Amino acid sequence: MTGFDTLIRNGTVVTASDTFDADIGITDGKIQAIGRNLPAGKKIIDATGHLVIPGGVDGHCHLDQPTGDGSVCADDFYTGTVAAAYGGTTTVIPFACQFKGMPMQAAVDDYHRRAHGKAVIDYAFHLIVSDPTEALLKEDLPRLINEGYTSFKIYMTYDDMKLNDKQIVQLLALARTHGAMAMIHAENADLISWLTDTLVEQGKTEPRFHATARPMLVEREATHRAITIAELADVPILIVHVSGREAVEQIHWAQGRGMRIYAETCPQYVTLTQDDLARPGFEGAKCICSPPPRNKENQAVIWDGLASGLFHIFSSDHAPFRYKSETGKMLHGESTPFNWIPNGVPGIETRLPILFSEGVKKGRISLNRFVELVATNPAKMYGLYPRKGTLAIGSDADIVIFDPNAKRIIRSQDLHHNVDYTPYEGLEIEGWPLTVLSRGEVVIEKEKLLVAPGRGEFLVCNKPDMARPKVA
Amino acid sequence: MTGFDTLIRNGTVVTASDTFDADIGITDGKIQAIGRNLPAGKKIIDATGHLVIPGGVDGHCHLDQPTGDGSVCADDFYTGTVAAAYGGTTTVIPFACQFKGMPMQAAVDDYHRRAHGKAVIDYAFHLIVSDPTEALLKEDLPRLINEGYTSFKIYMTYDDMKLNDKQIVQLLALARTHGAMAMIHAENADLISWLTDTLVEQGKTEPRFHATARPMLVEREATHRAITIAELADVPILIVHVSGREAVEQIHWAQGRGMRIYAETCPQYVTLTQDDLARPGFEGAKCICSPPPRNKENQAVIWDGLASGLFHIFSSDHAPFRYKSETGKMLHGESTPFNWIPNGVPGIETRLPILFSEGVKKGRISLNRFVELVATNPAKMYGLYPRKGTLAIGSDADIVIFDPNAKRIIRSQDLHHNVDYTPYEGLEIEGWPLTVLSRGEVVIEKEKLLVAPGRGEFLVCNKPDMARPKVA
Amino acid sequence: MTGFDTLIRNGTVVTASDTFDADIGITDGKIQAIGRNLPAGKKIIDATGHLVIPGGVDGHCHLDQPTGDGSVCADDFYTGTVAAAYGGTTTVIPFACQFKGMPMQAAVDDYHRRAHGKAVIDYAFHLIVSDPTEALLKEDLPRLINEGYTSFKIYMTYDDMKLNDKQIVQLLALARTHGAMAMIHAENADLISWLTDTLVEQGKTEPRFHATARPMLVEREATHRAITIAELADVPILIVHVSGREAVEQIHWAQGRGMRIYAETCPQYVTLTQDDLARPGFEGAKCICSPPPRNKENQAVIWDGLASGLFHIFSSDHAPFRYKSETGKMLHGESTPFNWIPNGVPGIETRLPILFSEGVKKGRISLNRFVELVATNPAKMYGLYPRKGTLAIGSDADIVIFDPNAKRIIRSQDLHHNVDYTPYEGLEIEGWPLTVLSRGEVVIEKEKLLVAPGRGEFLVCNKPDMARPKVA
Amino acid sequence: MTGFDTLIRNGTVVTASDTFDADIGITDGKIQAIGRNLPAGKKIIDATGHLVIPGGVDGHCHLDQPTGDGSVCADDFYTGTVAAAYGGTTTVIPFACQFKGMPMQAAVDDYHRRAHGKAVIDYAFHLIVSDPTEALLKEDLPRLINEGYTSFKIYMTYDDMKLNDKQIVQLLALARTHGAMAMIHAENADLISWLTDTLVEQGKTEPRFHATARPMLVEREATHRAITIAELADVPILIVHVSGREAVEQIHWAQGRGMRIYAETCPQYVTLTQDDLARPGFEGAKCICSPPPRNKENQAVIWDGLASGLFHIFSSDHAPFRYKSETGKMLHGESTPFNWIPNGVPGIETRLPILFSEGVKKGRISLNRFVELVATNPAKMYGLYPRKGTLAIGSDADIVIFDPNAKRIIRSQDLHHNVDYTPYEGLEIEGWPLTVLSRGEVVIEKEKLLVAPGRGEFLVCNKPDMARPKVA
Repeated sequence: MTGFDTLIRNGTVVTASDTFDADIGITDGKIQAIGRNLPAGKKIIDATGHLVIPGGVDGHCHLDQPTGDGSVCADDFYTGTVAAAYGGTTTVIPFACQFKGMPMQAAVDDYHRRAHGKAVIDYAFHLIVSDPTEALLKEDLPRLINEGYTSFKIYMTYDDMKLNDKQIVQLLALARTHGAMAMIHAENADLISWLTDTLVEQGKTEPRFHATARPMLVEREATHRAITIAELADVPILIVHVSGREAVEQIHWAQGRGMRIYAETCPQYVTLTQDDLARPGFEGAKCICSPPPRNKENQAVIWDGLASGLFHIFSSDHAPFRYKSETGKMLHGESTPFNWIPNGVPGIETRLPILFSEGVKKGRISLNRFVELVATNPAKMYGLYPRKGTLAIGSDADIVIFDPNAKRIIRSQDLHHNVDYTPYEGLEIEGWPLTVLSRGEVVIEKEKLLVAPGRGEFLVCNKPDMARPKVA
Repeated sequence: MTGFDTLIRNGTVVTASDTFDADIGITDGKIQAIGRNLPAGKKIIDATGHLVIPGGVDGHCHLDQPTGDGSVCADDFYTGTVAAAYGGTTTVIPFACQFKGMPMQAAVDDYHRRAHGKAVIDYAFHLIVSDPTEALLKEDLPRLINEGYTSFKIYMTYDDMKLNDKQIVQLLALARTHGAMAMIHAENADLISWLTDTLVEQGKTEPRFHATARPMLVEREATHRAITIAELADVPILIVHVSGREAVEQIHWAQGRGMRIYAETCPQYVTLTQDDLARPGFEGAKCICSPPPRNKENQAVIWDGLASGLFHIFSSDHAPFRYKSETGKMLHGESTPFNWIPNGVPGIETRLPILFSEGVKKGRISLNRFVELVATNPAKMYGLYPRKGTLAIGSDADIVIFDPNAKRIIRSQDLHHNVDYTPYEGLEIEGWPLTVLSRGEVVIEKEKLLVAPGRGEFLVCNKPDMARPKVA
Repeated sequence: MTGFDTLIRNGTVVTASDTFDADIGITDGKIQAIGRNLPAGKKIIDATGHLVIPGGVDGHCHLDQPTGDGSVCADDFYTGTVAAAYGGTTTVIPFACQFKGMPMQAAVDDYHRRAHGKAVIDYAFHLIVSDPTEALLKEDLPRLINEGYTSFKIYMTYDDMKLNDKQIVQLLALARTHGAMAMIHAENADLISWLTDTLVEQGKTEPRFHATARPMLVEREATHRAITIAELADVPILIVHVSGREAVEQIHWAQGRGMRIYAETCPQYVTLTQDDLARPGFEGAKCICSPPPRNKENQAVIWDGLASGLFHIFSSDHAPFRYKSETGKMLHGESTPFNWIPNGVPGIETRLPILFSEGVKKGRISLNRFVELVATNPAKMYGLYPRKGTLAIGSDADIVIFDPNAKRIIRSQDLHHNVDYTPYEGLEIEGWPLTVLSRGEVVIEKEKLLVAPGRGEFLVCNKPDMARPKVA
Repeated sequence: MTGFDTLIRNGTVVTASDTFDADIGITDGKIQAIGRNLPAGKKIIDATGHLVIPGGVDGHCHLDQPTGDGSVCADDFYTGTVAAAYGGTTTVIPFACQFKGMPMQAAVDDYHRRAHGKAVIDYAFHLIVSDPTEALLKEDLPRLINEGYTSFKIYMTYDDMKLNDKQIVQLLALARTHGAMAMIHAENADLISWLTDTLVEQGKTEPRFHATARPMLVEREATHRAITIAELADVPILIVHVSGREAVEQIHWAQGRGMRIYAETCPQYVTLTQDDLARPGFEGAKCICSPPPRNKENQAVIWDGLASGLFHIFSSDHAPFRYKSETGKMLHGESTPFNWIPNGVPGIETRLPILFSEGVKKGRISLNRFVELVATNPAKMYGLYPRKGTLAIGSDADIVIFDPNAKRIIRSQDLHHNVDYTPYEGLEIEGWPLTVLSRGEVVIEKEKLLVAPGRGEFLVCNKPDMARPKVA
C-alpha cells in the first residue's frame, strides 16, 4: 500500500454504527483504507478536531422539475447541487415526473436533458408516476426499474398527480414483482378538497388556512390506507414527510405487526409549526408545505421517532419556489389564496446542519443515528449502497469534514440555492460542513466551490436490498 | 504504516451497518487498519469467501455462579469461555450474584476469585442485587458502578432473588443518578407461586407444567410494571429474555411513547416451544427456562421484533445445569417436580450459529442486524464499546472469521461446554465460526483451542452511553 | 282504569334494562299499563312461562328494492313483512334507493308505491344516496330529512352505488346540520376490484373466491376511513354489518377516543364462516354477502362486541335473492362467477331466534341486551323510539310473546319469505316467537297470520336523539 | 285492581332504558303498576313536570367505619343515610372492614351493631378483606357470600389494608368459585411509598403533594395488574374510583379483549382537579382522596367513559372526615403532612345532583344513562336487582321525584351529613330531588325528613348476575 491520492488525517470517523479516530486513504475516487497512521497521500486534508462523515444523500428533493401551474422550480441541477454540496450532501435524488398523458420514458429523457452538464455532485432519479397506463405497468416501468430507476413516488393528493387506490395497489404489486421502492405522499385529497372549498367559500384564504385545510387526520387516514394497500400487495413502502403524532401512530402500529413500513421526516417538521404559517402579511407562505408543520407536541413525537428508529430517513423535500415571484409563492400576486400557493420549502443546504444542531447537539439523537438518517439509510433504501452513504472500503469517497462546533445563524443571503428566502431564517446552528469531497475530489473547501458544472454523474440504482416483503 | 502483527486478508467485513470486502491489519492486539491491499503482517489469515465479523459479546450468561439450592453451574470461567470462543463469542458478561445478607463487594470479590486464571477470552461482570440495604444503595453500589460494574440485574421473580417494587424503584433511581444499566427479569412471582401451588396440589409436577405455571400474562404484567417503574424513575432499562407477543406489545407500547425500554431475547425463544417441555419422560426438563418457550406464533413475533429493531440484543442466557445430575436438572431425582428443577438452558456456544442460520440464512434479518444483535449492541449497552463489539480502528481485535456456508448439525457431543446436553440437539445449522481472535491472538483455529486458561482479562465497563433518560 | 282492549297476562316482561313478571294492558293499540293483577281486557292472552318482549325492529333489510343488474328482490312488502312478523319483528326499515341520475324524491315516491297496500307490519324508509348532486345536498335531502326520512346509507363499495370521500364528507356534514343518521357500508372498492380482476384472470370464479376478493383488511381500511370522515364532519355514524376483528378494533379505537361511532352486526357474522362459501357445487353462493363471513375466531370477536356494548344494533341485512333463479344467485347460470352473484343472504325471519338461541341461551349475552340489540336500540338509532322498540307506557303495542324453550331446526320450507333457501338450514334453535302483536292487533298466533296486507303503516322518523356529536 | 296505597301521578318515568309519562301505583311498598290513568291511591303524589326515577344506589360509601389511625368517620348510619336520602339515594352499601388479625365475621357483626336502629333507608354490606387467612378463604368468606355478603373490596394500597398479588389471586379465584364481585382499589403501594418518602425528605408535605405522590402511572400500573390477575382467575372485577386517562386506557384495552372489567368513577373525578389540592392554607386537605383528582383533560376522558359505557357505576366514595378536627383532616394539627391526612371526601348527598347537572343538563350523558349509572347498574352489580335500582313491577318502591330545573348552589351548611365541609362548595347545580320514597314510604318531602331512625333494613345480596366469566 503506497501513497493515496488523498489522505484525510486525524479526524473522528463516524458511520451509522461506529465512531473512532482514524485516517482515511482515498485513491481513484474510492476509499482504500481506514486506519491509524496511514501513509501520506498526494493531497492531505487535516481533519483534527472534526468529524469525518459520509456525504449526505438527500432522498427527497425537487430540482428543475416541470410543474403544471406556471410555477417554476428556481433551482436547477447546478444551483441545487451546489447548495446541496455546501450543506454536506453529495448525492441527490430528485424526481423525473410524469404528467398525465406523457410516457414515463419521455419524462426520464427530459429530466436527463435538464440534468446534463449541470450537476456538481452525483445524482439518481426517482420517478413520479401520475398516469399508470397499461403500457406503463406492463412495459415501461418494469424496464425502467431494470435500468436503474428503482424507486417511484405515488401521490395520494394533488389533483394532477394523485392516483386512486386501484392504481396504487397495481403499482405496489409491480414494485413487489420487479423490485422497486414506492414512496408515498399520504394525504386524503378529497377531504382536503372539501375543507378547502369550505374555507375558500368563507373567504379564509390567507396562508395560515393551508394548515386548517390539511389537518392531522387527513394525513393519518391516508397513512392507514397506504399501509393497508402495502399489506395487501405484501411489499415494503416508504411514507414520506411524516408530520406528527397520528401518522406516527399508524406507522408504529404497522411496524409492530411486523410490516416493513419505512418512514421519512424532514427539517420542517422538527423546527416549524403551524404558527409559522400565520406570520405577518403573506410571510406565512414561506412555510407552506404539505403536510403542513404542526405544533411543538407533534415535533416531540417526531423527535422520539427519529431517536427510536421509527423513522429511517431524514430528507429535505427541497422545493425551491421563490417568495417574491409570480412563478413562486406569489403565483397569483401578493395575496395568492393558500390553495394556489406552490407547496414546499427550500432546505437542501440546511438539512444536515439542522439535524446535527437540533438533534445531536441537543442530545436527542446520537451521532451515529445522525449519519444513518442523512446518508446511510437513504443510500440503502434507494439502491445506492454501498457506493454511497457510508465510509466503507470500496465506497465512493463522498466525504464531509464536519466542524461540530461551528456556530452559524441561518441567513438566506448566505445560502447557495436560487431561492430568495429560507424558512429557517435566524435559526442558530451549531455544526456545519467544512470540506466536502465527491468521489475523492474536493468540491467545497473553505466555503469555496472548487469544481465545474457537469462533473456530477448519474447513478444507476440497484434494486433496493430492503424491498423484500415481511417474512411470513 | 509497515507490516502488521496480523493481517486478515480478503474477507467480507461486516459491521452493524456495513458490509464490504477488505483486509484488516492488527497490531498490538488492536485493529490498526481496514483497507484494500494492506501490507502483509507477520501472520496472515486468509478469509477469502468468509465473513469477518466482530467477536460476539454475550451479555447474559451464567458461569460458576453460586446457587442457593444445591444446584451447580457446570461451566466455570474456563469451560464456559472455551465454549463461548468456539461459538464465536469473545466477551462474556456473567453475573456476580449477591445473596441476601451478603455485601455486594463480597460477591464481587468471590466472583473475581472464581474467574481468576481461567478465562480464555475477556469478561466483565454484571451485578445481581438481591438485598438492597441502605448501605448498598448509599455506598456500595454507587462505588462499584464507578469502579466499572455498570450494570445490574433485578429479579421480579425467584424467592431468593426477587425485589419488591419499592426496592426496584430505589435501584432504578440509583441507576439514573450514577449511570448504570438495569436488566430486569420480568415475571410476576406471586402469580407464578399461586399457579405452582395449584398445579402441585393437583399432582401436576412433570416438566411440561413449568410452562403452565408461567403463562404469557405473568410476563406481560411484570413487563408493564417494570416499564412503569422505569417511567417513574425516568431511566432506561433492559428487559431480558422476552419470550412472546404480550410482553413485546408492552415494550412496543412504551417505545412508541418515547421511552428507552431496551429488550433482549435469546435462542430458546426462536427455536423451542412449550411442546419441547413435554418431551417424553423427563426430557422436557432440558428445555426448562424462565420465561418458558412459547409457541410458533410467538416465535414469529420475536422474529419480527429482531428484524424491526424492537429488540436490541440477543444473548444466550447460558445456564449450565447438567441433565443427568443431582446438582442439575435432576436435583431431586429423575422425577424432580418442575418447580424444583433448576431453570435455564445451555447455549453459550450455539448463540451466533443459531441466529445466523435461522435469521440471516432464512432471510429474517440482515447480516448487519445479526452483528448488531450479537456483538455491537451488547457492547454499547454495557459500556464496552468501542473496545469491544465492532470492527473499528483502535478497537480490540476480537474478530471472528465466519464461514457462512458451513453446515452442521448441533450435537451435544461436539460442543465444548461442560453440560451433558443441548436443547438444540439435531438442529441443522448453516454458518459456523472458523477462526476466532481475541485482542489479535488466535484463540480458535481449525477447531483447536490455541490458548491457555487465564489469558482472558477482566473488563472495566464504562457508564453506558445509552443510560440517559428520554429527552423531554 | 277499566278493562283494556287486550291484556297480556302473567308473562315475563323484558325491556332493554329490566326483567319482571307482569301483565300488560293495551288499549287503542298502545300500552296503557304494566302491572300485577291488571283488570281483564276484551281479549286476554296468557303468557305464562313466556317472555314478553318488544317487537323487533329490523334496521337493515332489503324488500322489493330495484336493482340495476337484472337481479330481483324476491320479497316484496307483503312476503317480507309476513316473514318478519313470523320471526318476531314488527317494524322494518328497508331502503328507498336512488340510482345515479334519479332524483331522491322519485326513489322515495317509487318506494311508497311498492309498499302501498302490502305491509302487514309498520315500516319506515332509509334512503340510499348514490348521486349526491348539488340539488340533493342543498334541497332534496334536507327536505326529506325534515319529512321523516332521517337516515341514509352510504356505500363505499359497489360500482353503481359507491361514493367518493368528498361526497361522503359532504353527506356527513349535511347529516350534522340537518340531523340524520348515516349508515356506512365500509369496504374499499378499489382494492376489491383489483383482487377480483386478479382472481378472475386466474379463472378463480367459484363462490368461495368471493371471500378471497374481500379480505378483512379492505373492510378495516374503509372502516378507518369512514371514522376519519365522521371525525372531520364531527357527527356520529353507524358502521353496518361489521364482520370481524380488524374492523372491530378500529371501532373500539374510535370509541375509546370519545367518538360516537355506532356499529351493527348481523346473524351471518356469528353463524357462518368463509368455509360456507366453499360448500359443494354452487351452494356456496347461498352464503355470499358483503363483507363475507370470516372464521370462528372472528365470530368470537363479534360476540365479545355484542356482549360489551361495542355493537349497538343487530340487523338481518335481509337480501332476498333466490338461489335457483336467473334473477337470483344464478344470475348468469349455474356457475355464475362470484363477482356476478347478487350479494346478500335472507334472514328477516330468523334474526331474533338466532340471536336468542346462540346468544342468550348459550350465555353470551343477557336477555336485556338481546332486547336492546334487536328492538330498542334500532328504534332509538333511527328515530322511532319511544313509539317502537320498547314496552313503555304510551308506546305502540308491538309485542312478541316469545317461548324461550321452543326447539326448532331451521328449515327453508318452514320459513315465510319468498326465497328458496336459508343459509342457516339445519341450525338448531332454542327459542321462537309464539304470538306477535302490532299496535295491539294480533298479527301472528299459533303460526297463523291473522291480518291482511296493507295494515302496516308508514312511519315518519324523528331526527335521531343520538345524532348529536361528541361533547368537546 | 283497586286503589293503591300510593299513586305517583303524571310524572316522567325514567329507567335505564326508557323515558315516558305515566303514573306509578304502589302497594305494600312495591311497585304494582305503571300506566296511564291509574286508579287513585290512598296517598297521591303529583309529579307533574318532574322526573320519576329509581332511588339511587350508592355502591361505594363509608359510614361509621372504624379506622386504625385515630381518625373518625363522622357519619354514622343515621346521619349518613339521612344525607343520602336527601340526595335521592335510597340504598347504601358501606363496608364491613376486617382488620388484620380480626375474623371477618367479627367485622360483620360489629358493623351490624353499628347499623342497628339507625338507618332511614335500606343498606347492604360490602366486605373489606385485609387478612385473607386460610380460615377466611376456606370457610368464612364462602359462607358469608352464601349469606348475602356477595361483594368484597381489595386494596392494592394503604399499609394496613393492602394485599399482595398472591392474596389477590386467591381471593379472585374464590370470587369465581363462590360467586362474588371483587372491587379493587388500584394504586401501586410501593411506588407511592417511595414518592412519599422522597417528598417528605424534601419537606414537601403540604396537601398538594398528595397528588405528586400518587401520579397517574401508579394507578395505571395497578389497574393493569388487577386486570391481569382477573384474567388469570377468569373472573369479572370492578375497578373502583378510576380517575383519568391512563387507567381508562387499560380498562378499554381489557374490555376490547372481551374481558369483563367493570369500572366505577365518582363525582370528584369530574369536578375537582389537582389544583384544588393547592387551595390556600390547609384547604387543599378538603379535596384529598385517592386516587387524587387529576386535571381537565382527564375529566374529559372520564366523561367520555361515562357516555360510552366504559364506566358502569357512579358512586360517591363518601368518606366523612371533618375538616377542622383532630379526628379528621387535621389529624396531626393544622398542618398535618399530606401522608397523614385521612383520605377521602364527603359526597353522599350531592352524587345525583352533580351527575345530573354536569352530565345530563350539559348534554354529556343521556337521562337513561344517568339512571343506569346511579341506580340500576349498582343494584345489578351487587346483587340487589330487581329489588332495588329500577322502576319495575314488583320492585321496591324506592322512588325519587326529581325536579330537573331546580337550581341550587351547593353549600355545606345546607347538606345533611355530619361533615363540616363539602369539596363542592359553591358549585352551581341544576336538578335536585324533591320527594324520596323508600319501599313506598315517603322519607323526604318538601325538604323534611319524615321517618325515624331504624326503619332502614339490611339487604341480603344475591350472587351478582354479572359475576360469570367471559365466554370463551
